[in-house]
Amino acid sequence: MSETKNSERPQAAPAEPALDISRRKLLGTVGAVGAAGLALGAAGGAGAYAAVQPPDDTTPLTSVGATEVMFHGKHQAGITTPLQSTGHLIAFDLAPGAGRKEAAALMRRWSATAESLMAGKPAGGGDTGVALDAGPSSLSITFGFGHSFFDRTRLTDRRPGQLDPLPDFSSDQLDPRRSGGDLWVQIGADDALVAFHALRAIQRDAGAAAGVRWQMNGFNRTPGATGKPMTARNLMGQIDGTGNPKPSDADFEQRIFVPDGGQPDWMAGGSYAVVRRIRMLLDSWEKLAQPEQEKVIGRKKSNGAPLSGGDENTEMRLDQFGPDGKLVIPQNAHARIAAPEQNGGAAMLRRAFSFHDGIAADGSPDAGLLFVCWQADPIRGFVPVQRKLDRGDALSPFLRHEASGLFAVPGGPRAGEYVGQRLLES
Amino acid sequence: MSETKNSERPQAAPAEPALDISRRKLLGTVGAVGAAGLALGAAGGAGAYAAVQPPDDTTPLTSVGATEVMFHGKHQAGITTPLQSTGHLIAFDLAPGAGRKEAAALMRRWSATAESLMAGKPAGGGDTGVALDAGPSSLSITFGFGHSFFDRTRLTDRRPGQLDPLPDFSSDQLDPRRSGGDLWVQIGADDALVAFHALRAIQRDAGAAAGVRWQMNGFNRTPGATGKPMTARNLMGQIDGTGNPKPSDADFEQRIFVPDGGQPDWMAGGSYAVVRRIRMLLDSWEKLAQPEQEKVIGRKKSNGAPLSGGDENTEMRLDQFGPDGKLVIPQNAHARIAAPEQNGGAAMLRRAFSFHDGIAADGSPDAGLLFVCWQADPIRGFVPVQRKLDRGDALSPFLRHEASGLFAVPGGPRAGEYVGQRLLES
Repeated sequence: MSETKNSERPQAAPAEPALDISRRKLLGTVGAVGAAGLALGAAGGAGAYAAVQPPDDTTPLTSVGATEVMFHGKHQAGITTPLQSTGHLIAFDLAPGAGRKEAAALMRRWSATAESLMAGKPAGGGDTGVALDAGPSSLSITFGFGHSFFDRTRLTDRRPGQLDPLPDFSSDQLDPRRSGGDLWVQIGADDALVAFHALRAIQRDAGAAAGVRWQMNGFNRTPGATGKPMTARNLMGQIDGTGNPKPSDADFEQRIFVPDGGQPDWMAGGSYAVVRRIRMLLDSWEKLAQPEQEKVIGRKKSNGAPLSGGDENTEMRLDQFGPDGKLVIPQNAHARIAAPEQNGGAAMLRRAFSFHDGIAADGSPDAGLLFVCWQADPIRGFVPVQRKLDRGDALSPFLRHEASGLFAVPGGPRAGEYVGQRLLES
Repeated sequence: MSETKNSERPQAAPAEPALDISRRKLLGTVGAVGAAGLALGAAGGAGAYAAVQPPDDTTPLTSVGATEVMFHGKHQAGITTPLQSTGHLIAFDLAPGAGRKEAAALMRRWSATAESLMAGKPAGGGDTGVALDAGPSSLSITFGFGHSFFDRTRLTDRRPGQLDPLPDFSSDQLDPRRSGGDLWVQIGADDALVAFHALRAIQRDAGAAAGVRWQMNGFNRTPGATGKPMTARNLMGQIDGTGNPKPSDADFEQRIFVPDGGQPDWMAGGSYAVVRRIRMLLDSWEKLAQPEQEKVIGRKKSNGAPLSGGDENTEMRLDQFGPDGKLVIPQNAHARIAAPEQNGGAAMLRRAFSFHDGIAADGSPDAGLLFVCWQADPIRGFVPVQRKLDRGDALSPFLRHEASGLFAVPGGPRAGEYVGQRLLES
């Protein structure tokens, strides 16, 4: 998994699922190191920003700003990295005439930019300055390839079968202009200006090689807003992410990542991302009283505990009946249908951002979930769960899947390598 | 000015202009108090959220979540309150048939909701739960009345002359559908879910009395992303807010707020907000090399220092010539034209959010500044500065004013009072 370094981060990992991030605690307690600029410089971090601080400034960056996510590693960053407060998803199509050569050059530029920005350094070749003053702020930049990328680059013989189009779901109302794409980039950071800065740098790097197909903005809780790290809450007010596989699970790696020796070989250490823009029909949802909402979900709103009792991490008692003779967790409750034990074990890691794009033409909130889930194989991860939800989920009437993407996200780059090099140069 | 309470907040106030917020430090150092739930409960704070924490949970909220902005006071919150990381601006028009009575009832509902949410408590009558787990997170909710409000409520004899329409500026390209409005609400918080939660509660309270006219989302830096509190930076990468009047200035109150005994009487302690959606033409701006950008602004990008030398707070030497015989701060530099000393002293407090609504139909970023400025009189604050900028500002070619609003924001409510009561019930 991706590694982070520098100082403690209060909101680092959701309590459950515990993302067991190892950290090099270079700063230890905030304030223990006199000149953060120097300390970060020594760590290859935000040294480039020292210039904006007067020489006598000994205020260290707090953990929010100082946390750095590693660019190099077995896996790309932004998969097991703790959820950040700001996210941008952006898809590009290669320009007419651009092929494998241009794609390789673009991936090389993007990788150099990602490595620099994630270390808290400026982008090469004219930085916009928007991230000046801030530390890396847990910035992660993640790159993926869509189905059409392999046609455009004449690499169809190396296209993974896992990129075969997702099946149609009856409740889909997908907008093709906001779906798919040759290339996909996920940006996350705990500071909105750091994230925007990265987004602009990635767009500029695209140059004449690729144009934006669609772009979406999302958010999560700010580090420190809750007293203890919590599983994320979505805009329906529901805890969202309970039961996610944990890196400490014996089968975590095999469920989420393509193994060494897996097929295709260039995807070793990689993962597949399913991206869905899921509009929440909040005007309808908020008309339901809380007990009704809880029956739709099958869990308590306050703490995510199953209606059958316990706390968020207690196993659901799916066969429990109430005094009224009805199932306590209704037959069509979202949590029952999506439960890992009902789907051959959890085979995807959900890592979503909320979105809110203001008010739609019909007066309803254009808000919901930028659902992103990660798996070694979408046919064993997203597809079976969504197929079941599509048939009988009590939550479905309150959701609308408006856009969809499926991307092959290669393994993390080794030092000196760019993302996707094993595909594009072998 | 508005007061905040609870624990320390690392990012509390920009270093310059220093907003001299007094705080009751109830928690002192984070961690010094065993059970934050209890401590906050005792303070009338986030006690209602104790239910979601197991009884043995002694993790205190961090300063980001625990900071509470006071609803009651001489002035409304959200004016001298330190900038929050998330902002929502929303304007409403009274419904056909709704008048003074309905407006008074709405202001009463809104005030009750604002008081409760700003204290970290749920909204009455069915809370959506979106803010569960989080503390108040510096939430502020601010209410204002537009010019048309006084016609709708038949209170034209009490309408302040300060609400007379702003003059036309030659560079304006205003969209009337996103401008004006009978009622205006500004929401700010250091957590995006807390802010969204407040937005939905305010919308629900509007009920049949008022409908949304327009709504905009903005953001600023996350508390802790920088090593020390900094003046805000905008999406052009420029430090934005230098030279703002400071509460410690002798004439701060008289420049920003309507005095006791001022006219109209119901505006005592109030202020006027000018709101502009200023699109930044970033594709053009980013093509300029940094030295050219700095000549447009008249300040260094890195630290906001005038090109004539010093640091951010050094006075500009407007008559300094360079070795090339030209003015170091060019004649049309933004900072020169907007300089307080060029405009009879700074008479407005700028307090903006950045916005980024994705990519526009023409492929350019739909991003820029939700400019909000506060003053005792727009004719002495915003208008003269904007008139000068409109004529000769080197920055103008990179900006587009797309929407505009002007609102009378009454003084803060006393205990038991609702915002605007002195207008609506006397």
